[in-house]
Amino acid sequence: MLLEMISTGEEVLSGQIVDTNAAWFADCMMGHGIELSRRSTVGDRMDDLISLFRERSRFADLILVNGGLGPTSDDLCAEAAAKAAGVGLVEHKEWRTHLEAWFHRRGRSMAASNLKQCLLPEGAVLVNNPAGSAPGFRLQINRAWLFFTPGVPVEFKQMVSEQFVPFLQQFHPGEATRLVKLLTFGHGESMLADQIDTIAVPAGITLGYRPSPPHVEIKVFARGDAGIAQQDAYVQQLQTLLGTAVVSTRCASIADEVHRLLLARPGTSLALAESCSGGMLCSQLVDFPGSSAYLQHSVVSYSNAAKELLLGVDATVLNRYGAVSSETAIAMAIGARTRLDSDYALAITGIAGPDGGSDEKPVGTVAVALCDRTQSWVQVVQLSQRSRILVRTMGCAIALDMLRRRLQDSEPLVPYPFITARRAYREEHRS
Amino acid sequence: MLLEMISTGEEVLSGQIVDTNAAWFADCMMGHGIELSRRSTVGDRMDDLISLFRERSRFADLILVNGGLGPTSDDLCAEAAAKAAGVGLVEHKEWRTHLEAWFHRRGRSMAASNLKQCLLPEGAVLVNNPAGSAPGFRLQINRAWLFFTPGVPVEFKQMVSEQFVPFLQQFHPGEATRLVKLLTFGHGESMLADQIDTIAVPAGITLGYRPSPPHVEIKVFARGDAGIAQQDAYVQQLQTLLGTAVVSTRCASIADEVHRLLLARPGTSLALAESCSGGMLCSQLVDFPGSSAYLQHSVVSYSNAAKELLLGVDATVLNRYGAVSSETAIAMAIGARTRLDSDYALAITGIAGPDGGSDEKPVGTVAVALCDRTQSWVQVVQLSQRSRILVRTMGCAIALDMLRRRLQDSEPLVPYPFITARRAYREEHRS
Repeated sequence: MLLEMISTGEEVLSGQIVDTNAAWFADCMMGHGIELSRRSTVGDRMDDLISLFRERSRFADLILVNGGLGPTSDDLCAEAAAKAAGVGLVEHKEWRTHLEAWFHRRGRSMAASNLKQCLLPEGAVLVNNPAGSAPGFRLQINRAWLFFTPGVPVEFKQMVSEQFVPFLQQFHPGEATRLVKLLTFGHGESMLADQIDTIAVPAGITLGYRPSPPHVEIKVFARGDAGIAQQDAYVQQLQTLLGTAVVSTRCASIADEVHRLLLARPGTSLALAESCSGGMLCSQLVDFPGSSAYLQHSVVSYSNAAKELLLGVDATVLNRYGAVSSETAIAMAIGARTRLDSDYALAITGIAGPDGGSDEKPVGTVAVALCDRTQSWVQVVQLSQRSRILVRTMGCAIALDMLRRRLQDSEPLVPYPFITARRAYREEHRS
Repeated sequence: MLLEMISTGEEVLSGQIVDTNAAWFADCMMGHGIELSRRSTVGDRMDDLISLFRERSRFADLILVNGGLGPTSDDLCAEAAAKAAGVGLVEHKEWRTHLEAWFHRRGRSMAASNLKQCLLPEGAVLVNNPAGSAPGFRLQINRAWLFFTPGVPVEFKQMVSEQFVPFLQQFHPGEATRLVKLLTFGHGESMLADQIDTIAVPAGITLGYRPSPPHVEIKVFARGDAGIAQQDAYVQQLQTLLGTAVVSTRCASIADEVHRLLLARPGTSLALAESCSGGMLCSQLVDFPGSSAYLQHSVVSYSNAAKELLLGVDATVLNRYGAVSSETAIAMAIGARTRLDSDYALAITGIAGPDGGSDEKPVGTVAVALCDRTQSWVQVVQLSQRSRILVRTMGCAIALDMLRRRLQDSEPLVPYPFITARRAYREEHRS
């Protein structure tokens, strides 16, 4: 069965609003084991609508159309559907009675423009809209059923869930599907693919890669009983193959994974010291409800004076090694940790650019340290100079990955094939 | 000229990511006075890609294709383009040399899969990608030029701005257009529209609204000489009408506006104290290069202990008024300012939710304070409980707007029609 979607509306086509209905619908269909084959987006222009309905109805079996059912002059879908089908518009008396009663109950009289919403193409089947004044409808054109839905998200979602899905299931009993995602860090998309290509993909399994800095996500999509039966074993194979590159199988970010690991250890506390990341590391954790259980504070010590006065970094360390150095990163971490006697601290200091680099320490040089009560781990890396935000994002991800590894009782310092390492070492604290 | 867009990729079609590239592109084209006529979205399936390229190339003059240029097995655009055009793939030797040198400079060897990115359809013109390993290219099929771009947003945007737009302008000299954006804060879209509807829109001017929390952007689009001639006077009329609602006519965010105002006052320094915002306020300023000129530090005092020990907030203030109160916000601001004797400080403390609310202080209660050397301004607001991130985003915007007004020598405390105020006052510091 070929399922397509048509999104209508100038504001969607022109990018003034992002088409979240489309994303929601596709995701919903995937949950029912159906992949869309195409989505077309057009504005509110009569000729464009008619030609699109005619064209797609020759290829697809079922087309979900969204938007263009409102009462105003730019809502043209019913008329365009009638013209595409070569029929007229007829008033749907029950809907008119329903609408008039609806307005009457609210003590308002129905606007003339709402009458337009009672006009449906001849032969169309009305689809109830319990949440609004625009009815949906479905109409057969050429080989396809076109299923028209309102653009208001709450009305749209209810109509899809309650009316479209049962209709769909009538002529598509469907196959079971299941999706597992592996979140990786520190390895490039092509490196991962080269490794993964060395083992055979089982029948019924499709692989996808989604680079979304700082991560690359690997999607393992299983279709049908055969695919699903093999999925767990294949995912296990991938994890063994990729080893330390996989940072989570349950979360969409390292921050989320670290957040869950910390929540799973009640009483554990964390402090942060940030320079170039400028609060981004802290904000990534605060994004998750419940982070106050472990997060005590973050000191964004953007100036050297702040590093000295707020974190107690020794002026001689700053002078001898510079603000961006493994020594300063360790001192920042220890300073942040001891302020409120936290269990762990992370520190980031680097040159985000575009200015501030030197031959010795170019833009993209970042030092990241983790400390607990007895020792520190630090690494200095050379990141891409491409953008300020990327340097900061990668710095945060390295810091979080170090803590993740420590919380999972593995070595915090590992080489990342996709990141250029300058130095990395562990240091016991003097007691 | 008929311009279309084709978005490719399972993750876009399946709704796993929202197609922000498409929205950005349509918006960018609108800035150049060109409306898209259609956008088609397909997955990474060879047959679907080929038939779509063939089909749309018979109707459009120019088609921007996004995605599918990566190194992995699901990146099929170059091959599909070649098949749609009925040509083979040939290696682009210069790009291979360029890629090998790129990897070599980073001390890495090129993965075999990257070789694929050097294969372009015969007859295609390579389009440079300074930000990544996937080159763009353009190829004529039927009546259309297809312009292929990478899916990674930073690479995509750079390629569109630097390469696609000049190409477009060659064969679409078009009509002169000019876009002015008014950034507003604290007023709802329909409130703004109701006010604006009271004055006539000059011929050649189109208005658009783009709500993008915490802002609503008003776009004043002028087309043709007549429109452009009237634009400045009309924008002036709007500014007079909307008054304090317009926070910038040159920036896309209040943070950017405040950043520029601070840079324009060399020697001015700023300190931040953040609780519920969790580093977001600091991070919004650090996003801009040069913020180290004024930003001294931010203390993210997430726990009460941090508020006391790092900011010197009196325990009796915390106990008597609570962590979320105008009194604590002022004490946090003063504490942050005096740490390094900054000129200004901003403080945010609130209940981001979903837990932690009470009858007296529900989720969404946020206190925001600004202080300088002699006085403080504070306001407590009740924000939407809709989402944690929205509470934090709005809190940051209020803080920045208070500082913006102070830097522009106007009153920092104003009522926002779209935000429920609880209390607001100014306080002189005891000397």
